[in-house]
Amino acid sequence: MSLEPARLQPMANAIRALSMDAVEAANSGHPGMPMGMADVATVLFTGHLKFDPTAPDWADRDRFILSAGHGSMLIYSLLYLTGYAAPTIDDIRNFRKLGSPCAGHPENFLLDGVECTTGPLGQGLAMAVGMAMAERHLNAVYGDDLVDHRTWVIAGDGCLMEGINHEAIGLAGHLKLGRLNVLWDDNRITIDGATDLSSSEDIKARYIATGWHVTECDGHDFADIERALQEAKADPRPSLVACRTLIGKGAPNKQGTSGVHGAALGGAEVAAARETLGWTAEPFVIPSEILADWRLAGEPGRAAHGAWAGRLEASEKKGDFTSQMAPIGSLVGPAIAGYIDDLARNPKTVATRKASEMALGPLTAAIPQLVGGSADLTGSNNTKTPSTLPMTAEDYSGRYVYYGIREFGMAAAMNGMALHGGIVPYGGTFLIFSDYCRNAIRLSALQQTGVVYVMTHDSIGLGEDGPTHQPVEHVMSLRLIPNLNVYRPADVIETAECWALALTTPETPSVLCLTRQNLPQLRGKGDENWSQANNRSAQGGYRLREATAARKVVIVATGSEVELAMTCADELEAQGIGADVVSMPCAELFDAQPEAYKADVLPTDALIVSIEAGSTLGWERYTGRSGINIGIDTFGASAPAEDLFAHFGFTAEAIVPQILNKLNA
Amino acid sequence: MSLEPARLQPMANAIRALSMDAVEAANSGHPGMPMGMADVATVLFTGHLKFDPTAPDWADRDRFILSAGHGSMLIYSLLYLTGYAAPTIDDIRNFRKLGSPCAGHPENFLLDGVECTTGPLGQGLAMAVGMAMAERHLNAVYGDDLVDHRTWVIAGDGCLMEGINHEAIGLAGHLKLGRLNVLWDDNRITIDGATDLSSSEDIKARYIATGWHVTECDGHDFADIERALQEAKADPRPSLVACRTLIGKGAPNKQGTSGVHGAALGGAEVAAARETLGWTAEPFVIPSEILADWRLAGEPGRAAHGAWAGRLEASEKKGDFTSQMAPIGSLVGPAIAGYIDDLARNPKTVATRKASEMALGPLTAAIPQLVGGSADLTGSNNTKTPSTLPMTAEDYSGRYVYYGIREFGMAAAMNGMALHGGIVPYGGTFLIFSDYCRNAIRLSALQQTGVVYVMTHDSIGLGEDGPTHQPVEHVMSLRLIPNLNVYRPADVIETAECWALALTTPETPSVLCLTRQNLPQLRGKGDENWSQANNRSAQGGYRLREATAARKVVIVATGSEVELAMTCADELEAQGIGADVVSMPCAELFDAQPEAYKADVLPTDALIVSIEAGSTLGWERYTGRSGINIGIDTFGASAPAEDLFAHFGFTAEAIVPQILNKLNA
Repeated sequence: MSLEPARLQPMANAIRALSMDAVEAANSGHPGMPMGMADVATVLFTGHLKFDPTAPDWADRDRFILSAGHGSMLIYSLLYLTGYAAPTIDDIRNFRKLGSPCAGHPENFLLDGVECTTGPLGQGLAMAVGMAMAERHLNAVYGDDLVDHRTWVIAGDGCLMEGINHEAIGLAGHLKLGRLNVLWDDNRITIDGATDLSSSEDIKARYIATGWHVTECDGHDFADIERALQEAKADPRPSLVACRTLIGKGAPNKQGTSGVHGAALGGAEVAAARETLGWTAEPFVIPSEILADWRLAGEPGRAAHGAWAGRLEASEKKGDFTSQMAPIGSLVGPAIAGYIDDLARNPKTVATRKASEMALGPLTAAIPQLVGGSADLTGSNNTKTPSTLPMTAEDYSGRYVYYGIREFGMAAAMNGMALHGGIVPYGGTFLIFSDYCRNAIRLSALQQTGVVYVMTHDSIGLGEDGPTHQPVEHVMSLRLIPNLNVYRPADVIETAECWALALTTPETPSVLCLTRQNLPQLRGKGDENWSQANNRSAQGGYRLREATAARKVVIVATGSEVELAMTCADELEAQGIGADVVSMPCAELFDAQPEAYKADVLPTDALIVSIEAGSTLGWERYTGRSGINIGIDTFGASAPAEDLFAHFGFTAEAIVPQILNKLNA
Repeated sequence: MSLEPARLQPMANAIRALSMDAVEAANSGHPGMPMGMADVATVLFTGHLKFDPTAPDWADRDRFILSAGHGSMLIYSLLYLTGYAAPTIDDIRNFRKLGSPCAGHPENFLLDGVECTTGPLGQGLAMAVGMAMAERHLNAVYGDDLVDHRTWVIAGDGCLMEGINHEAIGLAGHLKLGRLNVLWDDNRITIDGATDLSSSEDIKARYIATGWHVTECDGHDFADIERALQEAKADPRPSLVACRTLIGKGAPNKQGTSGVHGAALGGAEVAAARETLGWTAEPFVIPSEILADWRLAGEPGRAAHGAWAGRLEASEKKGDFTSQMAPIGSLVGPAIAGYIDDLARNPKTVATRKASEMALGPLTAAIPQLVGGSADLTGSNNTKTPSTLPMTAEDYSGRYVYYGIREFGMAAAMNGMALHGGIVPYGGTFLIFSDYCRNAIRLSALQQTGVVYVMTHDSIGLGEDGPTHQPVEHVMSLRLIPNLNVYRPADVIETAECWALALTTPETPSVLCLTRQNLPQLRGKGDENWSQANNRSAQGGYRLREATAARKVVIVATGSEVELAMTCADELEAQGIGADVVSMPCAELFDAQPEAYKADVLPTDALIVSIEAGSTLGWERYTGRSGINIGIDTFGASAPAEDLFAHFGFTAEAIVPQILNKLNA
């Protein structure tokens, strides 16, 4: 704690004042949390957090995560007060209005200094775990001189009650992430009322049971906060600091109640709060001596940044470190071209999950940023390669994470690693369990990260495990998420191509939907001199086979059903009916093609037939109302894969007559 | 424990033999868990579980949940051995084959005695929490004579590591569900290897911190298992029994390793296991004296069932209890008809979340089976009514659950309550957080329950909270789930109609997507003598307004956008262009209508325009490739709702010109 309490208190009250004023102006927002945690945040930012407001992207900065994202005015206040270029006071005046970077919840793509988007409860803390993993990994590779920072989190009761909290702290405890410190806003209030309305848990005991250090403090006593933060920093385990606070502290009639959580205080209560706090400045005005104290808070960080820059300049690892922190796009094509050339000459019949492992071989060998893992399905997801050794508490330099049975925790940790920088994470589970981490996938997309999800066992083709494990709606439902590329490759070469695309979209995450079952190689001819420039999957959908007879039919399919589409086309051609086959490994990329290309691939003068072992809803975009949609709109069943495909009508015998009927109608 | 160990051991080995044989025949499945937990299950079924194999639907039976559903051969063995009508030994021979009720994972709709579908890890235990809640609630209402049973769970490490475990045990601990006992298969093995590869948690301490009683036993010592189960039954808290087991016990070369988890043992190891176990019978044959011992296991339960039936017959509550356990469908229409009549005469402009609360008023008053709740958003979801008082550990008779910030735990608990019987649960959260409980919604559908999800704040119309809280893809992505009805009503009357439909589909769950913002009442004319028989929403989509001029356009919309569709139609008509407006509160019900009805509502000779403040993908089913799809395919933003609707093009000024351009093209 660099300043005495007499100077800290007005600084904390500046946060309270800005938060009240902004929420009041918006007539919308959450004043309770910023007012309750203002004192804790002031101690953190003035004495502990390592940050340089003039260089928010400095690689060795501490990361600060406001996991309780509804308290966004806390971080907007701090960024403004400490002198970041944004938000300006006008941005804060426009809190929650169109165009202001001060959105209802903090958005990493709107403001530097907002390390991640928070609001969906529990995920900020879980992303912080990933950031702390990234820090330890890069520290193990580059040493204390270049990588030596902490991850700080402010979390509320909601973050701790959500299921993901269990997964996140289990991972952090297991990996002994001692540089992760969570400041829990222990205000004993939830939206519905007191926390004891719905919880009787001894949270501190739970954290201790999970391998954490736990301490507590009076969240309104600067010296006690300082002591607790020092203790947290000193302990080698991750730390939970229970900060006992009064929600909405300073609002004399509403503090300590759920009424102050999520609504403007109202003019009368704001006036009473100003009286209580002794705050006399006009709304949105910070007295100059208080602002000056705040502007000093970043000075130690600026100095540390300068020293760090000197160490980097002098380091023999400078080149490697700089490459590590740079985009990987240019490495991808060269890493994999030879492998694809070889496939073109020596075709392979493998499951696409195996094809993914084969592609990952050269990719992980060439690209040190790739850090893989699986939620306890390593052998099924085929995510581990010889280049990726385990990352453990004893050796963080490894590049493979055994995430345990923690799909949501894994996905959030990957978001954190990606946002930290220096790492491009990929992780596996069964596609069905995308349901378990769906909102983290959405946050990968919203936050514009390049995370890659390896989702195997992508249809009824997984067979005997039955309907609980068979995706039906999943591929299409993931396509609905904005800024997410969903790939479903048809063979070993398309799988490599999709990997090559997934790793060259650093602001768009990817889901690779991969089969359990073997698929023949359909591509190869013309792929002998493969390069990223002639990656055919880049168009999202392309004519894999051209009609021989006069074209009457276009069959568009994905993944394991492309083979079936080829068989159907063969049978149609045998009857003199020309049929194209279009492979569509990525509908999003196809949709982004020029209209002329799309009209050429899916002409309006042919019968369009879609085949995908999943929901039909959505395929009408390509087939129209008068096409044919072959899919599965019920739950699956337990049986060997070949029996299921026959049972659900995924055979040429079942499909070709439907096409003939339609042509003859 | 009713029998001495010398008789129990061969009974347990019968489970091992059947499990090995079935997995071997299928060449697929999970022998490790059934073999490891055979001894524990034998003690449970022979001395503790209250069940009557001749009456699997007896209301006062104990519930047994195999949360580690991959060990399905354990429950199939037990059902066969104890003499349930199914599975037969032939069903077991056909384990994991098409048509056998012995699916890869246990499915509640295939076998009596399988209380719920399990396999998606963690959810079995979380559904068991709901069953235990249902038991205590009905006990509070009907007393020990009629409702007095326990809920038993077998769970594995995966169930305990998943995030939902935290939510489920937090709820159980808070509600002091002492009649819930979880037998943890503590085998220290996961798929990727030893549990310490990914976890360092003190699980027992965590459960104690969460309000649970914890004990442990040697899972292969019958007397020690017996002691632990007695202890669990005696303690007033929910109990975790850590059963220390050897995975795959009996397979001498593979037991204790992850290799025995999920693959057939192979002929040689099966032979070695038979040798180890002293098992000489042919595959799928149970020696008669062992089978006879097993068939005795259900006798105490059968006797208890008889005694219970006598008490029910003599009870003054017989009528009420019988009604409580019966379907509610016939109560719904009469409960709500007067309310709708009144709306027809006195229109109301309210948010549909408020309309939902208004409809719930008469519904919860008339239908005692309705048990509501919210994941800490009671005031926002409008889920509480005067008839639903809190259900607490002190008074389980209440019909409102403060679930806490536990969306996934809430959804799974609702599944458990619905499957228990006697309760029709509904629960609320923001629609965006359907992501957090998505797989439980899927299990509501797969298990054919009548759970109702009240999902409010259903679009960018929620305003300032911004993109993390604004559904975009959610409505359409829920429509993709099989056997799930997704409702998005347009006004206060449609909301009541959708509630009336949701409560009359006991084998199909429902999601009600409701607005935060006010909507005008569009319906009323002709609704004065409303009854379920003329519920217009029952057709899923219907012509709300008919073109006056010659029809050129049909605008189909849902929810808050129906009002906008009416405005657009007005403007088109003002220019002499006839335009129908179709309200489509439930696409699934519309899809199920006769082709002629659908063709009449959405004729091919008109331009079809869809308007929904969500993903456009999927709407082509109704508009074709040449229609117009008004929607939002990017993330939202933070601003007041009216600004967002304008920004994203949801105004007549933005839409009508597009329609005119298309008509003139």
